[in-house]
Amino acid sequence: MENFEFCNPTKIIFGKGILGRLGGEVRTLGEKCILVTGSESARRTGSYDLVKAGLETEGITVFDLSGVKANPVLSKVREGTEMACGERVCFIVALGGGSVMDTAKAIAAGARLNGDIWEVFEGKREIKDALPVICIPTLAASGSEMNGFMVITNEKSGYKLAAGSPFTYPRISFLAPELTFSVPRNYTAYGGVDAVCHVLEPYFNSPDPFTPVQDEIAEGLIRTLMHATGGCMEKPDNYQERAALMWAATLALNGITRAGVGNHPFPVHLIEHSLSAIYGVPHGAGLAALLPGWMKWKATFRDTKKVAQFGMRCLGCKDKGNEKDTALEAADAFGRWLSEVECPRTLSELDIPGKDHEKIAQNALFQSRIWGIENDYNATVIKEILSFCQ
Amino acid sequence: MENFEFCNPTKIIFGKGILGRLGGEVRTLGEKCILVTGSESARRTGSYDLVKAGLETEGITVFDLSGVKANPVLSKVREGTEMACGERVCFIVALGGGSVMDTAKAIAAGARLNGDIWEVFEGKREIKDALPVICIPTLAASGSEMNGFMVITNEKSGYKLAAGSPFTYPRISFLAPELTFSVPRNYTAYGGVDAVCHVLEPYFNSPDPFTPVQDEIAEGLIRTLMHATGGCMEKPDNYQERAALMWAATLALNGITRAGVGNHPFPVHLIEHSLSAIYGVPHGAGLAALLPGWMKWKATFRDTKKVAQFGMRCLGCKDKGNEKDTALEAADAFGRWLSEVECPRTLSELDIPGKDHEKIAQNALFQSRIWGIENDYNATVIKEILSFCQ
Repeated sequence: MENFEFCNPTKIIFGKGILGRLGGEVRTLGEKCILVTGSESARRTGSYDLVKAGLETEGITVFDLSGVKANPVLSKVREGTEMACGERVCFIVALGGGSVMDTAKAIAAGARLNGDIWEVFEGKREIKDALPVICIPTLAASGSEMNGFMVITNEKSGYKLAAGSPFTYPRISFLAPELTFSVPRNYTAYGGVDAVCHVLEPYFNSPDPFTPVQDEIAEGLIRTLMHATGGCMEKPDNYQERAALMWAATLALNGITRAGVGNHPFPVHLIEHSLSAIYGVPHGAGLAALLPGWMKWKATFRDTKKVAQFGMRCLGCKDKGNEKDTALEAADAFGRWLSEVECPRTLSELDIPGKDHEKIAQNALFQSRIWGIENDYNATVIKEILSFCQ
Repeated sequence: MENFEFCNPTKIIFGKGILGRLGGEVRTLGEKCILVTGSESARRTGSYDLVKAGLETEGITVFDLSGVKANPVLSKVREGTEMACGERVCFIVALGGGSVMDTAKAIAAGARLNGDIWEVFEGKREIKDALPVICIPTLAASGSEMNGFMVITNEKSGYKLAAGSPFTYPRISFLAPELTFSVPRNYTAYGGVDAVCHVLEPYFNSPDPFTPVQDEIAEGLIRTLMHATGGCMEKPDNYQERAALMWAATLALNGITRAGVGNHPFPVHLIEHSLSAIYGVPHGAGLAALLPGWMKWKATFRDTKKVAQFGMRCLGCKDKGNEKDTALEAADAFGRWLSEVECPRTLSELDIPGKDHEKIAQNALFQSRIWGIENDYNATVIKEILSFCQ
């Protein structure tokens, strides 16, 4: 086990009928807030009205910032930051999926930043304060509701970049599984895949071979996520399955699975951010298209043993007598699960052609440099991984 | 899954060579602290000198409170509280096992309480503030380093009672597995059993049959704890095994395994507190003596299915075709593991006679009333459980 620091101060309020507590929980934060939302779905389902009423009942003035799209963009963050500063709001409420929560965090940091928020994503500037953020996720996927990360796309430069800070952990997150009943079938699956990928990346990429506690928790979360994804697709309004998916997705990226596994890159996320930035594919779909190929690449060149362990402990694979064969079988078995949950499992299935690998690699390399992992994930390595994913 | 709230603000600093960071991390807390320690072991191993020097280097005045014993007593808490108020200290540092950490928390709460701290344990008064507590555990066992609980024995009345509060979560805990190298063989095992029991009680006693995430995490922690306990006994200075045991023991009672499983009692801890209070047995030894009998009682009367699941997933038990037989086999298998790690597995092995059951039950009933579970765990039920443990 490697040395680590762990601190996650987010308060979680989880369950049925919890939104009624919103006003009471946030009233000490101030008298003005921005309510960030996505497209129309929050209004259609009634959750928007419930949240707004909960805030206004406490005398809080609510400024609306709606229309956040998947792969959220910098211009929206700038719009929200101007609103936050201009109206002198005290906190930000996010009602939506990862895009909405990430936008809210970036606004919260931007409002307290002496400079340009995009420089934070470029690694040139540090967040030293942020407005409090309250998250009400409507999708089980990003884990943004219990971590300090945010991912924003600069639509002008064409880069989708991640940033994180101890100041951008949500103050409180209200996890109401019922809000996810209306998530469409495909996005339910993309969310499950995203969460599985959050667990898999540190699990596979840890430099430390002795992480028994972390392995057990990671494998348990993956089994739960895979099972619940199927369960939610089968019965979209099954509270228990939605609850299992939501809590497991939150735990998948709240720091617990990463504590003690050492510094490790997130190469699948890194490459997927380029797919989203270039082709506009949903994040979870992009991850799905990369994961089996990435596992085969791993099985062939790196961490063969861990991929084999994953197959045997999470996918019911038999020990094939040698690690590489077992690991390759794990990649296939995972691909079969992706097909079961109706996700793509190759780049071709997303209509991304092999001739684009160079372009994708160059985009990903830019992030690789910011993350300081350009030695391990240079253009050659990225193209090699992409060739396994085609 | 049941509704829940989860918030654990403790910052964990884990690993090798971390004690050098103590002074820098606490210097903003103030200029005076109490350093709570147990018997001579912290002085013998040099950790006391290291901690004291780390504090004094930052100009912090350190007041010593040493001599905290296993099953820590109220008189020591009172002594520390008087010292804290008299010297106007700003924070409390605990260097030791669960007894030392619990004493430190009770002092921290007592120093800010307008009234008698024992009334908090009796459920008559609420903690509304506390001095910051810094924990440096020297034993993997209680999980006190990452929760708000404390257990104190009133040596006059003969009751050992638990209390908890959001204010008594340690501010920072330094988890240095090397500090546990010198823990004797029997206390290493008692610590492992204590941590396993912390996971098992909510796992078995949850009123909700659908808790897949929680089950996976609980079972993973139990497997890790059982394996690492043996590993640490075999090689007391194996860093990796000590690290696995320490982090798993911390996660065992930091709230993660309990979130979503609903309100559940801790009957084994409840009864064990009476054993410790009456006979002075080490906490882990008392738990060990109760666990197989409690499992048999469970297998016979309640939660048969969960005990069977535990046996199959954590102990390698085969499905015997009916739940009760599988569950009884789980209890036996767990008893065999206790023998392997040289722990008692019955009350008789602790020389506690069957004729004392009434006395134990009456003591436990007092706690049962404070916890508000006297309907489920009345004297008859407690004696029934004890008869399975004899």
